[in-house]
Amino acid sequence: MATPPPASARRLLPLSLGLFQGALLLFFALFATYDEPSAAATQSEDGTRAVEQLSSLFPLFQDIQVMLAVGLGLLLAFLPRYGLSALAHNFLLLNVSTQWALLLQGVRHGRLRLGLHDVLAAEFAAVTVLISVGAVLGRTSPCQLLAVAFCEVPIYLASEWLVVTQLGVRDVGGTITIHVFACYFGLGVSKALFGTERRPAHPKETPTPRSDLLALVGTLTLWVFWPSFVAAPCQLGDAQHRAILNTFLALSAGAVTTVVASSLLESGGKLSPGHLQNGSLAGGVAIGALADVPITPAASLALGSLSSLVCLLGFRFLTPFLARRLALHDQCGIHNLHGLPGILGAVASAVAVLVASEDTKRCQLSHVDGSGVAGDLWGCGGGRQALWQVAGLAVALGGSLLSGMLTGAVLRLPCLAPPPEPLCFEDSLNFRIQEQAESPGMGDTAEEVALKEQV
Amino acid sequence: MATPPPASARRLLPLSLGLFQGALLLFFALFATYDEPSAAATQSEDGTRAVEQLSSLFPLFQDIQVMLAVGLGLLLAFLPRYGLSALAHNFLLLNVSTQWALLLQGVRHGRLRLGLHDVLAAEFAAVTVLISVGAVLGRTSPCQLLAVAFCEVPIYLASEWLVVTQLGVRDVGGTITIHVFACYFGLGVSKALFGTERRPAHPKETPTPRSDLLALVGTLTLWVFWPSFVAAPCQLGDAQHRAILNTFLALSAGAVTTVVASSLLESGGKLSPGHLQNGSLAGGVAIGALADVPITPAASLALGSLSSLVCLLGFRFLTPFLARRLALHDQCGIHNLHGLPGILGAVASAVAVLVASEDTKRCQLSHVDGSGVAGDLWGCGGGRQALWQVAGLAVALGGSLLSGMLTGAVLRLPCLAPPPEPLCFEDSLNFRIQEQAESPGMGDTAEEVALKEQV
Amino acid sequence: MATPPPASARRLLPLSLGLFQGALLLFFALFATYDEPSAAATQSEDGTRAVEQLSSLFPLFQDIQVMLAVGLGLLLAFLPRYGLSALAHNFLLLNVSTQWALLLQGVRHGRLRLGLHDVLAAEFAAVTVLISVGAVLGRTSPCQLLAVAFCEVPIYLASEWLVVTQLGVRDVGGTITIHVFACYFGLGVSKALFGTERRPAHPKETPTPRSDLLALVGTLTLWVFWPSFVAAPCQLGDAQHRAILNTFLALSAGAVTTVVASSLLESGGKLSPGHLQNGSLAGGVAIGALADVPITPAASLALGSLSSLVCLLGFRFLTPFLARRLALHDQCGIHNLHGLPGILGAVASAVAVLVASEDTKRCQLSHVDGSGVAGDLWGCGGGRQALWQVAGLAVALGGSLLSGMLTGAVLRLPCLAPPPEPLCFEDSLNFRIQEQAESPGMGDTAEEVALKEQV
Repeated sequence: MATPPPASARRLLPLSLGLFQGALLLFFALFATYDEPSAAATQSEDGTRAVEQLSSLFPLFQDIQVMLAVGLGLLLAFLPRYGLSALAHNFLLLNVSTQWALLLQGVRHGRLRLGLHDVLAAEFAAVTVLISVGAVLGRTSPCQLLAVAFCEVPIYLASEWLVVTQLGVRDVGGTITIHVFACYFGLGVSKALFGTERRPAHPKETPTPRSDLLALVGTLTLWVFWPSFVAAPCQLGDAQHRAILNTFLALSAGAVTTVVASSLLESGGKLSPGHLQNGSLAGGVAIGALADVPITPAASLALGSLSSLVCLLGFRFLTPFLARRLALHDQCGIHNLHGLPGILGAVASAVAVLVASEDTKRCQLSHVDGSGVAGDLWGCGGGRQALWQVAGLAVALGGSLLSGMLTGAVLRLPCLAPPPEPLCFEDSLNFRIQEQAESPGMGDTAEEVALKEQV
Repeated sequence: MATPPPASARRLLPLSLGLFQGALLLFFALFATYDEPSAAATQSEDGTRAVEQLSSLFPLFQDIQVMLAVGLGLLLAFLPRYGLSALAHNFLLLNVSTQWALLLQGVRHGRLRLGLHDVLAAEFAAVTVLISVGAVLGRTSPCQLLAVAFCEVPIYLASEWLVVTQLGVRDVGGTITIHVFACYFGLGVSKALFGTERRPAHPKETPTPRSDLLALVGTLTLWVFWPSFVAAPCQLGDAQHRAILNTFLALSAGAVTTVVASSLLESGGKLSPGHLQNGSLAGGVAIGALADVPITPAASLALGSLSSLVCLLGFRFLTPFLARRLALHDQCGIHNLHGLPGILGAVASAVAVLVASEDTKRCQLSHVDGSGVAGDLWGCGGGRQALWQVAGLAVALGGSLLSGMLTGAVLRLPCLAPPPEPLCFEDSLNFRIQEQAESPGMGDTAEEVALKEQV
Repeated sequence: MATPPPASARRLLPLSLGLFQGALLLFFALFATYDEPSAAATQSEDGTRAVEQLSSLFPLFQDIQVMLAVGLGLLLAFLPRYGLSALAHNFLLLNVSTQWALLLQGVRHGRLRLGLHDVLAAEFAAVTVLISVGAVLGRTSPCQLLAVAFCEVPIYLASEWLVVTQLGVRDVGGTITIHVFACYFGLGVSKALFGTERRPAHPKETPTPRSDLLALVGTLTLWVFWPSFVAAPCQLGDAQHRAILNTFLALSAGAVTTVVASSLLESGGKLSPGHLQNGSLAGGVAIGALADVPITPAASLALGSLSSLVCLLGFRFLTPFLARRLALHDQCGIHNLHGLPGILGAVASAVAVLVASEDTKRCQLSHVDGSGVAGDLWGCGGGRQALWQVAGLAVALGGSLLSGMLTGAVLRLPCLAPPPEPLCFEDSLNFRIQEQAESPGMGDTAEEVALKEQV
């Protein structure tokens, strides 16, 4: 791994991507048509409603696109000399994974009646890939990242089908199916790829104030649009309204708690930019499994605070511990942002089910309506549903860790052209960069200086 | 103030924030429930309408969130070495102030039926804090900024109640209640905090082309979404349509006038980045009080142009004058962006009332309908309403200046840990920054250079 | 052109802009009123529908504003020392061109009943200006850019009227009327302005990783919101749904193809930042003319891939060829992003018409409904409509090239103050920049260092 890959290995990227585009095109040509909800129900009440739902889904879809392409891209650009690669690889993986998920969904159903809902579902599959590769950011080649995408998307679809369709786990915001799954898949990849070798800190890993600033803009973009991410799959009406409120409250409490905890954990009461970039979002990860549930606003606040706290404790204590003991490499700290808050949210959803089913019993005795309607829908089954929530967590976590390690083993193939250690975290490995001085006075000849004074 | 604060003072930030989060949680646990508009009116026409209104409010809410978290944050990042702090403090204040306003609204009503409208109203309260602290940006500690938030939000809520509910002032876009109030509150804080001491220009206050570029991106984000800010509180339909159009026209005319005026005010016909960053937004500040009124498109254009002109004249002449004569320190020039255009907009709204009431009389004589409907609603009372608009301006301005000065006196408390003068405008005071060279060739060993040539 | 312009020439910018604002104000005062769709149809079904359409158009309008002000501005900021100018000039031209188009629309109809639809139509006119000036970015003065705006907008409106209203060309996303037109207008301007003189590469033309990163953020912003741009003029319902899906598919396939092609065209399999910034958007340009047509999802994918391929081949081979043979200067490569994909899209729309009309004949024989409804509307006329699509392309292309060259001749007027060659691509020509060192350690006195260690 110390010598650069042969030039021929470089051809694998365009070759594999080109083949994939060809296969996609063929499949779409044979099996894909448009879903046309309103034509199917012309002139009727249903047709009007379908149009309305579409026109209220589209702004949320665009918000989610901003999160994934711009917000997440910028957040990953915290490495000062790897910003272009982070942004570009994130964008490439978003597109390839979405297309791959659409194709696989089509294969499963035998045909593809393509609608905006399908694209949204495919993007949720892509999110798992974008999260997972955070564990190995900067130390992987584009071919390795593509291999992750091709392995992870089908496993995600299977896991999501098992957890949501078969076990009936409730998880509107993807806490279990997306965040926990993606985190442990990524950690599995990292473990199997890097083995037991402990990596010393790379001199180019340290963010600068400038790269931290851009990454913080990414965080803020994700923070702002997170309610759209959670609300998009919800039913219009009170459930969606609750999802928006709960997510907002969890994110807002989490942001404040992040400042409290970072200030206590860092010496001199200063803040750590990395804490702020990640901790502020932990509330959104945790709330996903219960966002549409009437858990009370106070519970959302508490869950948001708690998950940000857990996230920062993870950064401070768990990540160094895992690196030391297990030689586990987690470049972006996905275990702290997606793993720990995801588990917390899953457990909280099980507790909420138990409490809600107790409430419902009391409700039914006292004939109180209103919130009872929602409570009933949610609480039926009570303890059993709580069990399913925990079972779903176990399935997602165990399955992803295992399949991630298998994927990581695949990534060791030399033909995937892993970057040589000294060129890690370096845009010039992936991009044609024209070296050039950037100092303000550069290139100013005497003539120019004279001109500037004249003008 | 010349020596750094003792380490113990550093604990005040997490302590006060932690206590606040605890109190918030307790209050929410006791008094907060969800507002459920459609469950309350199940199956009825009203329920459907409530869902529709919600689903058309949510995109505007998200636009406003982008403005406050990303747009305003970037605009404040014009100080080249204080960008992280500006962005992070803005984000912290946004969250704390919104939560604090929700709590106070709940206290006032005895309980909190939380809906998206309430969160929006609370964010408007937070906006005043974000504007006010612009006067003291870079020379204050996070504890001082929090003290501003805790003092300003209740006073804003009282002022807004007095001006809108009691005096019946019309101000859909917050020209008087938000912008004028926040500006003079901030100037009061600055005056009482810094006293009569004249500060020499700090060497780190000068923006660089790079920080100016990011700040301009912030301006453009605010500029784009300003119509959402003004339209969100409007009734759906023609009033909202007018609000969008009037705001767009005022902003667009203001942007062009800014270029004209900046080019005339600067030597050599060049533009000043600061002028562009602020002047382009002045039209949005001024139009707020009359955005939903049928004032004619031409009046919106004229008001937008005039307010940008006033804003730039303020930057060129009034700010230096106030600094010289009153030793008034206004770091971001909030008096020019929020104060002067706010007063202009308030006066314009009084004039518009008078004109509209004249028009209405004529309308009623000639039985012309159409715009007469809106004119009637607005013009009833005529001269008296005009008086209320001016009275509202006086109340907001006087009250905020007074209460701002009291708040500024509180900020002189040594326990709030004001930053020592040489470390003002410096991210390293608030953030753990890892010092590192950033030159492109940094860290490239001979081996790396060889590798790069090979690859 | 080697000496700087006299100070008097600098006054032309504020003078001309000021006069324009005055004329605009006068025209609006005399002829402009609000369009009030729901007041005109009070209480009726139509009024409700008008409100609904407005409230579903507004989010798309805001998305488009983000594209034009922020996305395009950042994309143009790829020149490392010209970012402020690129962003500011783009913003100024957006406003002036939109206002100018509103005025001209009003003149044409004798009055202006201003609604959100009119503002949107005027912004589409402004887009052509923003695209065209990309050909001469960095080598032109603000006065020259304004001259382009004043000449191009009326010609665009005439061309759009001829192509769409008279010839009946279908082009919902502006492939022909906006992109092809703007590209060849810009190339005409460049050719006539710079003549046959071959310009050597300017030392300041080379992007840096940092400016490339910001430009890529601009690309991603445009990429995300492109479906809104294409869907905004569509009818609500299935046509809009198809427009969204087709545009998304074309953009997504184009993004992947860009990586494939760039990796093959660059040495060593690396990517070119410029390829990524432009190629990723080519699919959106080409799909515009057929976005609302049921061309099948596979056709959208194929068209997106093909247009990105054509775009990158243009960058690699055609631009150097045209520069060598015709001394054609195209700073941003608008011919590759807007010209070639635009022509491709126009030709594809003609083919689609022919195929659809064949399909429709078969549909009518076999009495299949569903897609037949849309196919019928589109396919009627068959071959004749295909001819019109090609004729529209020819008119837009020929007319714009000719009128662009005339405009370029106007731009040679010395009073428009072209920038002297050594100061091209330099913000300090347009902005008052305070020169300042930016190194991290700058200005740290011994006292400060001591303080920092203490704090």
